[in-house]
Amino acid sequence: MNLQEKNKKGVALYKRAKEIIPGGTQLLSKRPEMFLPNLWPSYYQKAKGCYVWDLDGNKYLDFSYMGIGACILGYSDDDVNGAVKKAIDNGSMNTLNCPEEVELAELLLKIHPWAGMVRYARTGGESMAVAMRIARAYSGKDKVAFCGYHGWSDWYLSANLADDKNLDGHLLAGLEPNGVPRGLVGTMLPFHYNKIEELEKIVAENSDIGVIVMEPMKFQEGQDNFVKKVREVADKINAVLIFDEITVGFRFNIGGAHLKLGVNPDIAVFAKGISNGFPMGAIIGKKEIMQSAQTSFISSTYWTERIGPTAAIATIAKMQKENAPAYLEKTGLEIKRGLFEMAQKRNIKIHIEGFPAMLHISFDYPNSQAIRTLYTQEMLKKGVLASGGIYVSLAFKEGHIKEFLKAVDDVFLTLNKAITENKVEQMLEGPIAHASFQRLN
Amino acid sequence: MNLQEKNKKGVALYKRAKEIIPGGTQLLSKRPEMFLPNLWPSYYQKAKGCYVWDLDGNKYLDFSYMGIGACILGYSDDDVNGAVKKAIDNGSMNTLNCPEEVELAELLLKIHPWAGMVRYARTGGESMAVAMRIARAYSGKDKVAFCGYHGWSDWYLSANLADDKNLDGHLLAGLEPNGVPRGLVGTMLPFHYNKIEELEKIVAENSDIGVIVMEPMKFQEGQDNFVKKVREVADKINAVLIFDEITVGFRFNIGGAHLKLGVNPDIAVFAKGISNGFPMGAIIGKKEIMQSAQTSFISSTYWTERIGPTAAIATIAKMQKENAPAYLEKTGLEIKRGLFEMAQKRNIKIHIEGFPAMLHISFDYPNSQAIRTLYTQEMLKKGVLASGGIYVSLAFKEGHIKEFLKAVDDVFLTLNKAITENKVEQMLEGPIAHASFQRLN
Repeated sequence: MNLQEKNKKGVALYKRAKEIIPGGTQLLSKRPEMFLPNLWPSYYQKAKGCYVWDLDGNKYLDFSYMGIGACILGYSDDDVNGAVKKAIDNGSMNTLNCPEEVELAELLLKIHPWAGMVRYARTGGESMAVAMRIARAYSGKDKVAFCGYHGWSDWYLSANLADDKNLDGHLLAGLEPNGVPRGLVGTMLPFHYNKIEELEKIVAENSDIGVIVMEPMKFQEGQDNFVKKVREVADKINAVLIFDEITVGFRFNIGGAHLKLGVNPDIAVFAKGISNGFPMGAIIGKKEIMQSAQTSFISSTYWTERIGPTAAIATIAKMQKENAPAYLEKTGLEIKRGLFEMAQKRNIKIHIEGFPAMLHISFDYPNSQAIRTLYTQEMLKKGVLASGGIYVSLAFKEGHIKEFLKAVDDVFLTLNKAITENKVEQMLEGPIAHASFQRLN
Repeated sequence: MNLQEKNKKGVALYKRAKEIIPGGTQLLSKRPEMFLPNLWPSYYQKAKGCYVWDLDGNKYLDFSYMGIGACILGYSDDDVNGAVKKAIDNGSMNTLNCPEEVELAELLLKIHPWAGMVRYARTGGESMAVAMRIARAYSGKDKVAFCGYHGWSDWYLSANLADDKNLDGHLLAGLEPNGVPRGLVGTMLPFHYNKIEELEKIVAENSDIGVIVMEPMKFQEGQDNFVKKVREVADKINAVLIFDEITVGFRFNIGGAHLKLGVNPDIAVFAKGISNGFPMGAIIGKKEIMQSAQTSFISSTYWTERIGPTAAIATIAKMQKENAPAYLEKTGLEIKRGLFEMAQKRNIKIHIEGFPAMLHISFDYPNSQAIRTLYTQEMLKKGVLASGGIYVSLAFKEGHIKEFLKAVDDVFLTLNKAITENKVEQMLEGPIAHASFQRLN
């Protein structure tokens, strides 16, 4: 059976979705076009651990992004679900407040002793906007030096207003700032990770930088004390330093990745790492800075519901109990070793970057994206969701790794043949996957 | 037992909360200071229907804001909870998309035939920011004429940058725009509800208004075809008209309140009305306008989780099945009649504005806020959460209304004595409730 037939319902529903949802999905990284255009199962009906059942009843092993990084414990974790369902039975919304938000604040502050206060939101983008508002209110300055990707909000996307090359080299080049008010032009000044001289140049040329924002690490580790040097620049110019821990937090260690680096920000933002797929965001920071939230207006009804903090408390407790970061690292290393072994065996040139818990694989060929698409296509036929990234989960057990590597072994053999015979594009049953943001038809 | 003793745990936890959460809560309208400073139970452990159990084990009838308007069906509704718990068991987050977001889009478009496409977010404020981005991207203009309150985001709060009187007469006067970039100054131009001449003046003086945003109704109905006239102005200047239906949508009729008015916007935004307390936001709009989302970057991981659309589908289905809007209206009218009856009986001068489903009560005295505080204090002693507003819920049954009115009868007697003897302030066991945003110590 071909993939179109196999994923019939999912493919048809996505076709309909594109007619009534602009862009088809709510997240670029979940677009079927990013994986396998026209053939991707697209929708799920059920998920458990690292298995997924699509609308057509096919069962897949998910060795790709585990909910785009949101499910460190694996899908539908019984312990977190149990806590959440109890909160739902007891009422997840009320006129009064839920005590869990205070309990979670105590927990986050215990893990991050440098911080003194906590606020919440329900998505990562929104949490970053809250952090930016507080930081700007405290500093009294609007200009921001930034490194990397921090969401869809006006404050961030305005970076592209001045010069559409500003975000090149950051996570998503070419992000269009249409609809972002032009009055924000010039507020965002970019620097690259590990290029302290770029940040130094920005602060030398701009006396009014109030905020510096970056991920403390991501696919690479800071070199030559880069992150520590950013902290020193922030201190020197009295800027608020924000670490975006949405992707990396709680993945490499319990708490922000900055704890591992030994460099403390003034504000840190968590979201995807802390609640195993339930919407939640937390903004933690030094007390005197966080109190600036009181000099602005930052308020939203759904930030008060009970599921978010309940899920976060249960998720963090389980990650602590199971020592999740150590397990992710060990497991990621094993997967990485296995991938290199298969690549060597089948003579496929691959490159893997990132920390073991969050691997990014690329194929070292001129037509790398076509090869990656063929890899996804052939892995799908073997019952595995696979793409350029592997976000390791606590649900990955020995048997799953073997199942994955067995499929990789077979598919790398196919890839080798396709590459050797120059038939990669020919073997694709649909278009090449998109590598970045583009308009869908 | 005095209230301080009765609500000991709740009061103590809130004291701690203010030390580690700036502003104490995530929503201004949930601050204990807005109800009964120092004495409010503040936190709940359990809620069902219209009853709430606080941390000290006290049981209250909630005839106040029903989750600040988020729980039209009542707390912990079995049908919505059942659908949500099933979604959780089947995995509420995945690398693939959830089919419920397409199903909900179909449902919203069926209810609103003028609309062609749908996007989602998870909070009201965020949903309004998405709507504003899309509208500005479509119009190519940054300037916005607005009426009323639309959340905490930069785009809205920037109204106060130019002149801190700009938001006076809108929902929350005095909102501080600290931390909002000054480059946004002049982008937001306010007009008042039912004052079409104000909007006409704005468009006469500004040729570059791209967006008009307002609530179609709230505490008052449009007079002299006000909303229709706004639509005509929008058409004339080719502006995108956004209706904020976050509070009013699905409360007076199934769908946006604009359906009742017979005036269609270009974009409508829903949140609190559609999912009975589970975080969800929906942005619906005309196809050609919504497609502008594809020319900008609007993307967030948690917008893809499954609980939000699942809860919305179940909530809307139940509201349709039970004809909730009719029940809310009937019930609200009964409460209103009862309140007036008690007020007459006890000689208390009250004023009630708003539609029956969403009543706002004020006391017609110079020290009205002190009297409202005393009312809340004495109602609390009778086991009722009561404040200046009554958001009617499907969970309000005959017995609850009787229970509420019995308490009102007793408390109005107390108020009458306090007012007559000029002892209102003296009888307060804590400070007068805050009437608006202010910094907490």
